[in-house]
Amino acid sequence: MFDIVGFGEVMIRLSTVNFQRLEQATSLDVSLGGAELNVLVTAQRLGLKTSYITRLTRNPLGRLIEDKTREQGVDTSHVIWSDEDRQGIYFLEFGALPRPSAILYDRKNSAVSKIQPDMVDWDSILSQTKAFHTTGITPALSKSALETTTKALSTAHQKGVQVSFDLNYRARLWSQEEAKAALSPLMQYVDILITTEEDTARVFQIEGKDWKEVAHKLTDTFGFKVVTITIRETPTVWRNNWLGIALKDGQFYEDRKYEMEVVDRVGSGDAFAGGFLYAYLTKGDIETALKYGNAAAALKHSTPGDFAYFTLEEVENLMLGKGGLRISR
Amino acid sequence: MFDIVGFGEVMIRLSTVNFQRLEQATSLDVSLGGAELNVLVTAQRLGLKTSYITRLTRNPLGRLIEDKTREQGVDTSHVIWSDEDRQGIYFLEFGALPRPSAILYDRKNSAVSKIQPDMVDWDSILSQTKAFHTTGITPALSKSALETTTKALSTAHQKGVQVSFDLNYRARLWSQEEAKAALSPLMQYVDILITTEEDTARVFQIEGKDWKEVAHKLTDTFGFKVVTITIRETPTVWRNNWLGIALKDGQFYEDRKYEMEVVDRVGSGDAFAGGFLYAYLTKGDIETALKYGNAAAALKHSTPGDFAYFTLEEVENLMLGKGGLRISR
Amino acid sequence: MFDIVGFGEVMIRLSTVNFQRLEQATSLDVSLGGAELNVLVTAQRLGLKTSYITRLTRNPLGRLIEDKTREQGVDTSHVIWSDEDRQGIYFLEFGALPRPSAILYDRKNSAVSKIQPDMVDWDSILSQTKAFHTTGITPALSKSALETTTKALSTAHQKGVQVSFDLNYRARLWSQEEAKAALSPLMQYVDILITTEEDTARVFQIEGKDWKEVAHKLTDTFGFKVVTITIRETPTVWRNNWLGIALKDGQFYEDRKYEMEVVDRVGSGDAFAGGFLYAYLTKGDIETALKYGNAAAALKHSTPGDFAYFTLEEVENLMLGKGGLRISR
Amino acid sequence: MFDIVGFGEVMIRLSTVNFQRLEQATSLDVSLGGAELNVLVTAQRLGLKTSYITRLTRNPLGRLIEDKTREQGVDTSHVIWSDEDRQGIYFLEFGALPRPSAILYDRKNSAVSKIQPDMVDWDSILSQTKAFHTTGITPALSKSALETTTKALSTAHQKGVQVSFDLNYRARLWSQEEAKAALSPLMQYVDILITTEEDTARVFQIEGKDWKEVAHKLTDTFGFKVVTITIRETPTVWRNNWLGIALKDGQFYEDRKYEMEVVDRVGSGDAFAGGFLYAYLTKGDIETALKYGNAAAALKHSTPGDFAYFTLEEVENLMLGKGGLRISR
Amino acid sequence: MFDIVGFGEVMIRLSTVNFQRLEQATSLDVSLGGAELNVLVTAQRLGLKTSYITRLTRNPLGRLIEDKTREQGVDTSHVIWSDEDRQGIYFLEFGALPRPSAILYDRKNSAVSKIQPDMVDWDSILSQTKAFHTTGITPALSKSALETTTKALSTAHQKGVQVSFDLNYRARLWSQEEAKAALSPLMQYVDILITTEEDTARVFQIEGKDWKEVAHKLTDTFGFKVVTITIRETPTVWRNNWLGIALKDGQFYEDRKYEMEVVDRVGSGDAFAGGFLYAYLTKGDIETALKYGNAAAALKHSTPGDFAYFTLEEVENLMLGKGGLRISR
Amino acid sequence: MFDIVGFGEVMIRLSTVNFQRLEQATSLDVSLGGAELNVLVTAQRLGLKTSYITRLTRNPLGRLIEDKTREQGVDTSHVIWSDEDRQGIYFLEFGALPRPSAILYDRKNSAVSKIQPDMVDWDSILSQTKAFHTTGITPALSKSALETTTKALSTAHQKGVQVSFDLNYRARLWSQEEAKAALSPLMQYVDILITTEEDTARVFQIEGKDWKEVAHKLTDTFGFKVVTITIRETPTVWRNNWLGIALKDGQFYEDRKYEMEVVDRVGSGDAFAGGFLYAYLTKGDIETALKYGNAAAALKHSTPGDFAYFTLEEVENLMLGKGGLRISR
Repeated sequence: MFDIVGFGEVMIRLSTVNFQRLEQATSLDVSLGGAELNVLVTAQRLGLKTSYITRLTRNPLGRLIEDKTREQGVDTSHVIWSDEDRQGIYFLEFGALPRPSAILYDRKNSAVSKIQPDMVDWDSILSQTKAFHTTGITPALSKSALETTTKALSTAHQKGVQVSFDLNYRARLWSQEEAKAALSPLMQYVDILITTEEDTARVFQIEGKDWKEVAHKLTDTFGFKVVTITIRETPTVWRNNWLGIALKDGQFYEDRKYEMEVVDRVGSGDAFAGGFLYAYLTKGDIETALKYGNAAAALKHSTPGDFAYFTLEEVENLMLGKGGLRISR
Repeated sequence: MFDIVGFGEVMIRLSTVNFQRLEQATSLDVSLGGAELNVLVTAQRLGLKTSYITRLTRNPLGRLIEDKTREQGVDTSHVIWSDEDRQGIYFLEFGALPRPSAILYDRKNSAVSKIQPDMVDWDSILSQTKAFHTTGITPALSKSALETTTKALSTAHQKGVQVSFDLNYRARLWSQEEAKAALSPLMQYVDILITTEEDTARVFQIEGKDWKEVAHKLTDTFGFKVVTITIRETPTVWRNNWLGIALKDGQFYEDRKYEMEVVDRVGSGDAFAGGFLYAYLTKGDIETALKYGNAAAALKHSTPGDFAYFTLEEVENLMLGKGGLRISR
Repeated sequence: MFDIVGFGEVMIRLSTVNFQRLEQATSLDVSLGGAELNVLVTAQRLGLKTSYITRLTRNPLGRLIEDKTREQGVDTSHVIWSDEDRQGIYFLEFGALPRPSAILYDRKNSAVSKIQPDMVDWDSILSQTKAFHTTGITPALSKSALETTTKALSTAHQKGVQVSFDLNYRARLWSQEEAKAALSPLMQYVDILITTEEDTARVFQIEGKDWKEVAHKLTDTFGFKVVTITIRETPTVWRNNWLGIALKDGQFYEDRKYEMEVVDRVGSGDAFAGGFLYAYLTKGDIETALKYGNAAAALKHSTPGDFAYFTLEEVENLMLGKGGLRISR
Repeated sequence: MFDIVGFGEVMIRLSTVNFQRLEQATSLDVSLGGAELNVLVTAQRLGLKTSYITRLTRNPLGRLIEDKTREQGVDTSHVIWSDEDRQGIYFLEFGALPRPSAILYDRKNSAVSKIQPDMVDWDSILSQTKAFHTTGITPALSKSALETTTKALSTAHQKGVQVSFDLNYRARLWSQEEAKAALSPLMQYVDILITTEEDTARVFQIEGKDWKEVAHKLTDTFGFKVVTITIRETPTVWRNNWLGIALKDGQFYEDRKYEMEVVDRVGSGDAFAGGFLYAYLTKGDIETALKYGNAAAALKHSTPGDFAYFTLEEVENLMLGKGGLRISR
Repeated sequence: MFDIVGFGEVMIRLSTVNFQRLEQATSLDVSLGGAELNVLVTAQRLGLKTSYITRLTRNPLGRLIEDKTREQGVDTSHVIWSDEDRQGIYFLEFGALPRPSAILYDRKNSAVSKIQPDMVDWDSILSQTKAFHTTGITPALSKSALETTTKALSTAHQKGVQVSFDLNYRARLWSQEEAKAALSPLMQYVDILITTEEDTARVFQIEGKDWKEVAHKLTDTFGFKVVTITIRETPTVWRNNWLGIALKDGQFYEDRKYEMEVVDRVGSGDAFAGGFLYAYLTKGDIETALKYGNAAAALKHSTPGDFAYFTLEEVENLMLGKGGLRISR
Repeated sequence: MFDIVGFGEVMIRLSTVNFQRLEQATSLDVSLGGAELNVLVTAQRLGLKTSYITRLTRNPLGRLIEDKTREQGVDTSHVIWSDEDRQGIYFLEFGALPRPSAILYDRKNSAVSKIQPDMVDWDSILSQTKAFHTTGITPALSKSALETTTKALSTAHQKGVQVSFDLNYRARLWSQEEAKAALSPLMQYVDILITTEEDTARVFQIEGKDWKEVAHKLTDTFGFKVVTITIRETPTVWRNNWLGIALKDGQFYEDRKYEMEVVDRVGSGDAFAGGFLYAYLTKGDIETALKYGNAAAALKHSTPGDFAYFTLEEVENLMLGKGGLRISR
């Protein structure tokens, strides 16, 4: 029995060192990256049991992905293996004011983009979990990935599994029109929507005078149980601020603003989702869930890689303002 | 005016460090690799003027490829640029007895595989060169790449340019039957065939009691001016031996056998071709050309990367047995 | 249900780079090392389900050990966690003729040395496995570790679990007399003894004119079902040879001798045990088991780290003499 | 035909890692550094054709310099090669408040310091370019380097080539008196002077109540067509601000102030010159040229190495305020 | 004859790279760390003659510690060597807002914790020095270390050697009660107390409305000749401020506040002590001593490792406000 | 009081990694190299007290050299410091059959090449030592270095200090004629000549039918007390053999031949001299001295860097054939 089952793509992440541009690189650091897996990793590290559904190629890169997934404790027993296809790759270079960080995707024709709805036994898997999480990236990968996402979401919904969905619009994968057409019908299956004001505007053309209004409109339009909206302020590349709010049953929840020195901001939105879901599923309290999500997102900025290398105790200490910035000995 | 124009694919090469398996990698070394470019690099370093035709994507990886190509002095002014597509990648792990080194290709749908015959002004480019070099890899990339290769070879032939062709059979790209069907018609344009006994058997089913017989049969069948055959002996992974012979006008040429400690054997066949073409074009003497080719191939094993980082003086010293193995101070 | 449960210590392994002496080190590579875990990793990679019993400290090093264990697919759900104590460390420097490689242990007072027999629910765990594996290192760690090993072995024996034991004498941990006194009573529970001539002589003072005689004497003395003896020849530090034989039911089994270029020989005896157990449990054939063991041991020498980074297919190809030393593309 | 020909010294740059002091270094990063080449690299990357005149030693370091120069697309066909002498080296360590970054020069007796006026065919080379660029460093290298610079500048001037000169006073190379005596006579050949208030005061003892006054006095004294003055504010070592202004035909041009997080500030003044010259030569508009220069200088701070690893599009996006600090995907 | 003899533990320091968590580490940087040695290193670099007393194990790690100690010029001829025991280790990970840096100690049962009072010839050694320095860490290591510290301090006091003591409370080593009981009787031998408000409160329960009051109370209670109190402000992890004050003969001394960009703050308190003692012993002036101490502490933040890699000239330039933040060429 | 005082140049050694050519380097490893210092380091590590005389520049590179010298325990209190000049540098690339390793020197105008005879108080220093060691490199550095060497040697001789001299001909520094003219007059002061057949032939034109004859002729010509001749066999770059013989009082001494896997052969001749001198000075027995010398030379090949990172125990174990090639645990 799992707490969360996730579904999506995980890529090989190749990042430059010492702020090099990719064009300058003579070596690249290797890790994994993928929005849905990132969420599971955070949730798993905080204490949940998670399982990740994806499709991998039976070659060293596919095995590397499985290895690094289960290194985090995330179950890989439901991964689909292919003897064809390739693993998606993304290249990352870190920026400095006034140059933003940049990602170059090389993910076309990946094994998971060739997934078919019936490759996964959704009925069985979704009978073994409390929650299901995916994002707006997965259906954008291909027509069959959209079909598979649809099947997964509808099955989860039908089984009473809590469905969490991060809107995550990716302009490289599809147009705003395509995204809207594909994603709108899926929203009926979603319980918890995790998004930003920008993505909401780009995908659903839903805007408002503030984020509260946006959250209300989203709830009104699609009937979500919970909507969370997160905001990143970027005074510089190395200094960011983080805020998140939630709306549930017409009630707004807010939390403190976090200031961060940015080691690696990739995956921090996913850490928010992972922290939020952890607390939502274990504490049941939306206000608490929001606090865990925000603290997890803030902490994620301080560690390299997509994954959130912290413990439950560290997240809770930060929420409680314990410890400060002295060296922890 | 160039001495050699080459045509083919160059990939981003990502290699593991310290004999790690790819599955273990936490960082990868970045360089370039591509059979045709490797040949040009050797020829250029020895003193020729070369230009490389390929198709690259206008992104950091495409720019990296152009940079590292012109770093070697190879002209890139005739490269075709694409706003679509991707750069091919190959992953390399170094072996140790009893584990051979291994390459994992991720080259499908690369920019050059989408090349069309008329993207390049073959008439103009091939009017500016003494020789043209490509390999059996390029036509294997796609149907349009085969058409483009055909156009390039026939144009070169018609213009009286010396045509050099390395048979280079790649089982991952096509079957032996496909290779034979595609390559046989191209052989009429080829002056210098560079090959091995294995590739000859696999592509043309031409075999013999020894390599001399194979070379004769090749000449008889296709009418090449020059045929070279190279042999690698692999007593272990870290120790290899190298031999090459040539056949021209019915006369055989042989040279000494080289023993090597293997730092990186990838690209050594291409160094042979580059050394051979350098001396063939500048000295005109097949026996001398063979000696340059073999010495270049042997030396290549001692340097990391596909490219042959040596000077003309070093190749000639090795041919002449100068210097020995004392530290050169 | 597991195929093999293992029990022992796993240490943080800190190894020098580029043949540096430890005294020269400015950075150290981090991985794991532990004889029993190494065996499980090989067996798991070849296809078995394994679980590892140890005691870890709830700190970043303990978590690192758990992470890297499950990265290999080995189950860690039965690990015992401590809020006290430390993780053992071993430092490794790589040699070159005439300097052997060297290990410096810093393993005293590790969490697992403080284990008590009743910290593990042996009854339950050993009801879920076909085989149990440990080594002569574990009982040498402390008095309570010896008691725990005794309890584990006797329980396994009583439950009809196949018991595999690698004699692995460690002179740093105890004297030959101590080892003999502690280990002799344990041998009654052992079905499969994995050892070398040297260790047999040192621990049990059992010697013979050849290894066959040693194996016979071992079987006669302790009544093992299976005895395997492995031999390493060390012509140089970078070139070793490997042989292994087995005795079962009075019948000897031999296999070819493997020659290796040595990247990292640590863990190759464990790879033998892992390969042997894999085939013994899945094929049931002692001759086949020996072949898998030897091929796994030989391959292990070619990869850095204690763990055997290869696939079932690679082991089988080596056994069958497929592939040779050409670059695998 | 070139857009800009540059003349000067390029050194091997050896920089420490992770903010180590040079005294602590166990490894050093290798790249190139040289004020004039840096300018060409920026101009070339933005779209111009450039050629670099220097004198190099025919050894691996000399070849490394040529390689890395043409890697950037800068022509090296007019480099003078020496069989004697050495390559200059500079050591760089990166600072942190309150410790500034530091450079240790080891450049005496370099090949280019031994250059003689007639080693270069100035007549021919300067007939093939629109602009010529050098700095106050080159004539400071040696007496013969001063003579060569004089010949180059006077020839360029006489041929109607646009002459750009960066004052760049280096106290390690000569005194203020020596600099004034040597440089004053050269100013008659200069069209575009690039400088700072500090250098102007140190070399020409020209000061003013603000930079406008300084620029006016410079123009009045030497009759430059264009004067640019740049200012760096250094609130901390990791945070700098950049401003640049220009004076032409009595008209002042100003631009926004840029804030930067500093990865590597070496070469940013040169990036200004490169950006300025690019736009000055291609757009002809001094206001636009200033904007390109400032944006190029600001961006340069974000990448390691003397060279400005960015594209024309990135510079223009920054000028236009496009993109912001979100991750560019 | 030495200026300062120090006594304490020095550990192998293993630190993560690129802000990795220890749990993520694949390699660790190796250096030394130890509060007392750090003080000597600063004093030695500024110009004093120092000798370090500790107990080391005769193995590669012990030798590494001796090597790196004498690399700094600190005398090691009085080190005690053991054939048993181990070297303490500490693991360090660097933080980023909101995650503080963290240290994991693995120092139990180190060679120096087993030291006995009579292993060192205190009479002889303390006859050869002007000052003696140790900290509150050393007596916390073990009962015998406390006894040895007591003997060292009382002998020094009796011989009229200036005794300097940094209170340095370590909660991992003992409770506040244990510290108070052990340290209070030692204070009678101390001339110069170096401390912080936090440590004073934790060990002696001495608090005040400001640090002046704390210093007065300390002097009143224990009769110190000199008390220094230092304050670190931590607006973020990468930006800290530093202040230090001193009280002598009822007179307060203050100095400017330093702002730092933090590369590595470990050892900066020790750099303060080293700078203070250097100037106190050579200039005799408490105000000057304070300025050297503060400047040394500030500079230390900018270099990696526990040791303060700067020169006397750099410290004095900073004190005098010379140089600024321009690149020092 | 010292056992050996050495005099010569020590350079910053910058070596490439992973068998890269220098032209390919993106980073270089930093260490020290210098024939005379290498000898002292070996002798010091084996148990002698040594002091090194050289001239260094007061900059970070000079300090780095002092640091790394005293890291080895070698006294640096007699080093002469200069505020001018530079440190010599040598670049090293490692070879592989058929490419030899190569060194590029950049040592002209180093601080020590500007040394004057009276900069060192030879009378005083040479009154404090049993032996003095220098090589044929030092007098080749400059005219004043030759004068200084002459003064040092004659003073040592006159004081009855044992004088050891390694002939070490360097063709980059002077011609054979120059070497002969300069070195011949110095030989009268030499007690122990350490050389090879090649250097003897090149400098003194002394040759023979075997090395015994050469040693005899050297003794006859110059009246040395001891002559040692060493031979390196180079079957490949990664495998070398080592032999050394000695002649004293008309008696020849021989020893076993050592086989080595070569990590870094630079400095192994110096390790021979250091081992020889150690045993010659402490055991007084020429046969034993030869054995220590040869074992030290053989072991040196297995460690990176010019310095011989081994212990007395390791050298003696190798001489006695203890330990073999098993992992030392």
